[in-house]
Amino acid sequence: MLITPGPLLSGINSPDDVKKLDQVQLVQLCEELRQFIVDNVSVYGGHFGASLGVVELTVALHYVFKTPYDQLVWDVGHQAYGHKILTGRRDSFHSNRVYGGISGFPKRKESEYDTFGVGHSSTSISAALGMAMASKYMGIEDKQHVAIIGDGAMTGGMAFEAMNHAGVSDSNILIILNDNCMSIDPNVGALKDYLTDITTSKVYNKLKDEVWNMLGKLPNLGKNAQEIVSKVENGIKSTLLSQSNLFESLNLRYFGPVDGHDVDHLVHVLNDLKNIKGPKLLHCVTVKGKGYGPAEKGNATTWHAPGTFDKITGEIHKKTYEKPQAPKYQDVFGHTLVELAKADDKIMGITPAMPSGSSMNIMMKEMPDRAFDVGIAEQHAVTFSAGLATQGLIPFCNIYSSFMQRAFDQVVHDVCIQNLPVNFCLDRAGFAGADGPTHHGAYDIAYMRCIPNMIIASPMNEEELRNLMFTAAKPRKENAFSIRYPRGQGVMPNWRLPMQEIEIGKGRKLREGEDLAILTIGHIGNYGVEVCDKLEKQNVHIGHYDMRFVKPLDEVMLHEIFSNYTKIITVEDGCVQGGFGSAILEFMAEHNYKAEVKLLGIPDAVVEHGEQLELHKECGFDPEGIERTVIEMLELVSKITL
Amino acid sequence: MLITPGPLLSGINSPDDVKKLDQVQLVQLCEELRQFIVDNVSVYGGHFGASLGVVELTVALHYVFKTPYDQLVWDVGHQAYGHKILTGRRDSFHSNRVYGGISGFPKRKESEYDTFGVGHSSTSISAALGMAMASKYMGIEDKQHVAIIGDGAMTGGMAFEAMNHAGVSDSNILIILNDNCMSIDPNVGALKDYLTDITTSKVYNKLKDEVWNMLGKLPNLGKNAQEIVSKVENGIKSTLLSQSNLFESLNLRYFGPVDGHDVDHLVHVLNDLKNIKGPKLLHCVTVKGKGYGPAEKGNATTWHAPGTFDKITGEIHKKTYEKPQAPKYQDVFGHTLVELAKADDKIMGITPAMPSGSSMNIMMKEMPDRAFDVGIAEQHAVTFSAGLATQGLIPFCNIYSSFMQRAFDQVVHDVCIQNLPVNFCLDRAGFAGADGPTHHGAYDIAYMRCIPNMIIASPMNEEELRNLMFTAAKPRKENAFSIRYPRGQGVMPNWRLPMQEIEIGKGRKLREGEDLAILTIGHIGNYGVEVCDKLEKQNVHIGHYDMRFVKPLDEVMLHEIFSNYTKIITVEDGCVQGGFGSAILEFMAEHNYKAEVKLLGIPDAVVEHGEQLELHKECGFDPEGIERTVIEMLELVSKITL
Repeated sequence: MLITPGPLLSGINSPDDVKKLDQVQLVQLCEELRQFIVDNVSVYGGHFGASLGVVELTVALHYVFKTPYDQLVWDVGHQAYGHKILTGRRDSFHSNRVYGGISGFPKRKESEYDTFGVGHSSTSISAALGMAMASKYMGIEDKQHVAIIGDGAMTGGMAFEAMNHAGVSDSNILIILNDNCMSIDPNVGALKDYLTDITTSKVYNKLKDEVWNMLGKLPNLGKNAQEIVSKVENGIKSTLLSQSNLFESLNLRYFGPVDGHDVDHLVHVLNDLKNIKGPKLLHCVTVKGKGYGPAEKGNATTWHAPGTFDKITGEIHKKTYEKPQAPKYQDVFGHTLVELAKADDKIMGITPAMPSGSSMNIMMKEMPDRAFDVGIAEQHAVTFSAGLATQGLIPFCNIYSSFMQRAFDQVVHDVCIQNLPVNFCLDRAGFAGADGPTHHGAYDIAYMRCIPNMIIASPMNEEELRNLMFTAAKPRKENAFSIRYPRGQGVMPNWRLPMQEIEIGKGRKLREGEDLAILTIGHIGNYGVEVCDKLEKQNVHIGHYDMRFVKPLDEVMLHEIFSNYTKIITVEDGCVQGGFGSAILEFMAEHNYKAEVKLLGIPDAVVEHGEQLELHKECGFDPEGIERTVIEMLELVSKITL
Repeated sequence: MLITPGPLLSGINSPDDVKKLDQVQLVQLCEELRQFIVDNVSVYGGHFGASLGVVELTVALHYVFKTPYDQLVWDVGHQAYGHKILTGRRDSFHSNRVYGGISGFPKRKESEYDTFGVGHSSTSISAALGMAMASKYMGIEDKQHVAIIGDGAMTGGMAFEAMNHAGVSDSNILIILNDNCMSIDPNVGALKDYLTDITTSKVYNKLKDEVWNMLGKLPNLGKNAQEIVSKVENGIKSTLLSQSNLFESLNLRYFGPVDGHDVDHLVHVLNDLKNIKGPKLLHCVTVKGKGYGPAEKGNATTWHAPGTFDKITGEIHKKTYEKPQAPKYQDVFGHTLVELAKADDKIMGITPAMPSGSSMNIMMKEMPDRAFDVGIAEQHAVTFSAGLATQGLIPFCNIYSSFMQRAFDQVVHDVCIQNLPVNFCLDRAGFAGADGPTHHGAYDIAYMRCIPNMIIASPMNEEELRNLMFTAAKPRKENAFSIRYPRGQGVMPNWRLPMQEIEIGKGRKLREGEDLAILTIGHIGNYGVEVCDKLEKQNVHIGHYDMRFVKPLDEVMLHEIFSNYTKIITVEDGCVQGGFGSAILEFMAEHNYKAEVKLLGIPDAVVEHGEQLELHKECGFDPEGIERTVIEMLELVSKITL
């Protein structure tokens, strides 16, 4: 079902067509754009609230700026649906986030309007500043560089690093602070309170009014804007005696707050700002989910990415199942953590801005003094956890695998070098699915495995996750403990089993075989079971070991394996380079075993978005791929019927 | 030669002894402590200026706070010499930074007064906040948690992440901003300008005076301090109309600026702050190198870690050599970059606060508009470089190997996933030497190797470094290019040879052999040459290959090697887990070669500080260790004389 765009939007094939519109038509374009997003997402799913919140800003930016010559960098990028639709991707928009379709995030390969690939938070100012400094160096004076960043993303440290540089850069950069009090969950921290203060404060409203009234009196400031604004600013500064604003402290000229849903005013403001040189910030207040009643009034977290829904009633579609379903791993984590925390008052929970995504919200609700959302701040989350551990507490710090990349140094430097017992739960390990390469948890086994004093485990099912968490929750004096598990469901509808301690570094022999053994790690081991079952029926008996720990490896089990098998397949949903299979090869070299070993996993390439199974297939480690490898290694091609 | 401490310092065996002193004696203690540091560092070397700058602060902190019950977290930690000397390490201080001796940084294993291991920048607020929140949760109300952080470290994003959390934490944390306008090099960025403004501004001096005068009138505020400060603050706030300070924007109570060299006043201030609950920041102005004339008046960067010097004249000892010496790799980098940049105006240089350490200062001096010091901000440095690359410029971003851990996500997400041609030069790869485990560049091969679209190379000597840089400087459409090299000198006194392009992924066969081959990567290959030469004289002929590229591997050469040798040793000055040797094993598995392979490199453990050669020896890959492995593998023990 293709969605029909409204009459104005139908004619918009590129931002040039937006520019041809009369300014009074922009309100209608916004309406149609918003409707098109609602129509699409309600049917196909995807991110929702964020893009609705910046419809007016998106239209105003493309109306005012000469894109793609002028450069827009969208932070995170899940708010860029409107941008995609206006920049030539209206008719492919139904393929958003689908295997082979367009990406849910801006992506350089996809469009020249996507100036910088995004997905993770807080990168936009650095990227836009790089572009702006390049223009400055090359003597290009008329080019505009705009970073659009949410208030949630502003809490990520690298945004601050970039502002510290931007403030002394004398570059032509405009930072648009899209202030909606939200990341995926409600935004937290002192900065949020501060922005709320600005928005509601009389002093700042006065400042705002003075600036904009003065600008407003001169409908087209053009080249004089620079001078006029300076005068206004000087006036205000002498009133306030001193720099009076966090952003001005960093030498960024601060403008706003402005209403981010008044497209006419936005066009006016952006036109003026175009003529003001130097680094500057426009504070723009928006509402996530704006213009779609159920999203605007309802729970913003739910409407961040609601899945498909009935656009008339606002009812979010729930899947119905005939059989009881296995839970999501994240929920097993969330409930189990509370269960463990009830039994031991030293257990604490930490999440960087992912309460709902990680299901840490369960603990935050039940034990608000023991579970912390620290904002989009993975680095701080890890070192804060290390600080808790020094006091004898038992932190469980939950970070998505791909976001943990942001805190790699903290894991090395603050946790493992000083050998502190911090527990990490890495959700979304392996392919993230529709979110694509920026969100795939492809590298964590490799980047964690090289660190000393680190235990790395991965559960094959819900029971194993619970047992690993139970094990990690036992007080211990040293070693970080990292438990990785994928996005999505496990395999056990009845998962609330009593928990048992697991011996650290102990794998599980699932099946004895002849000639060939499969060594798996984590949930992907279920593919192994499937393959073994199938081949068993054809009288091909292969061994299967769920290694459970990447580090330390179960050396006793490995000696047994390498003594009994000459052909081995390792399977992991992580990168092959330096990963789990590589650890097996290192063991083999150390003990001088000889065997034919095939490593299956994510190859040395950027894998795009799609369903997890589609991507596993592409990489050759779906059940079929594993089976094919078995058959090739055993040279069975002619012997059995596939 | 042991240094004799002054009469007061001789009696200080722990902070308890400091507390026993009369407050009037503290000035003398400071003098003796400063002298002891000068006496020691002038003879034994080490960090210098930073510790001199915080002598008064250190004494005041241990005088006022109940350490180790109260917890001090020193950011970075190279300023903590005074702290070490006062906390039981006076008599072992001569072993500072020496193999087997005490560490140059605070370290939990070393002392209960070292509450958190440091070395990298900007971690202290997160760690102290973790401790403070733990105390709060456990109902411990009287415990103090103090983070001492320099203004340079304040530009690191994670400090901001932590302040954003601290501001809403209601925890008992005191942040002491040690403002000396310096990191190792002069501090940069908007924050620095802002702090200078505060310190010189009339408004802020008025604020300061009001607060401190009022407090000063009541010599011992004790428990009433809270109330009195609130009153004063309200008064000031109504004067300034609104929050007027960057730190107060983040809901941290701001006090200061105070003179960080007035120990009497510091004691007074800290005593009062002890009784003020909630998150707060004391802005303390100090001079790096304070109290030692040559350091105070001279170049602060030089005096950051001057080596040994004549304490009377202030003349820094220069080593004299009979023969011309090989240059430091960093200087080869610095000069070569300028040479390349002169030939191609698209080449740009980026360093995060390491102009002198990386020798980027050469380019910064010659081409100030093309070389950027972005502050202690590795994350921003990488993504800023990516931004430059999108505009067709050719960035060389130089970051120490261990500091690059801080920007791992940016390398993955902002550079490699979108396949941008950014060049990275990783200085201090391998063991950093006296700086110890926090600074060892042990993991970069492993953490870089797992990333797609990444070329990884390492030069065996100066000529190779130049050729690799020349190759990386050629315009290309894609692939990041990472060149790693160690701290210290190369091997070629005459290094300014004409540069040549190297085919990407092409290794060098240095020597043909029989039975056994050594595969090396980088400078450590010189050990290989030494071993081969020695064994050659005993008629043991081993092959030696300088692989030059970790990624892509020279597969043609590897096929040749695995076809001709059955015994192979890989040598790298990086972690074995997932490293270069591991890459060789993956190649071997892929092509089903059988050989006996030994991987030499950094084992899966935290290796402490010491001279590079001492540490190589400890890990068994110094020339002797390599030779031993050859002999064992060839079972030559009885055949040749060692």
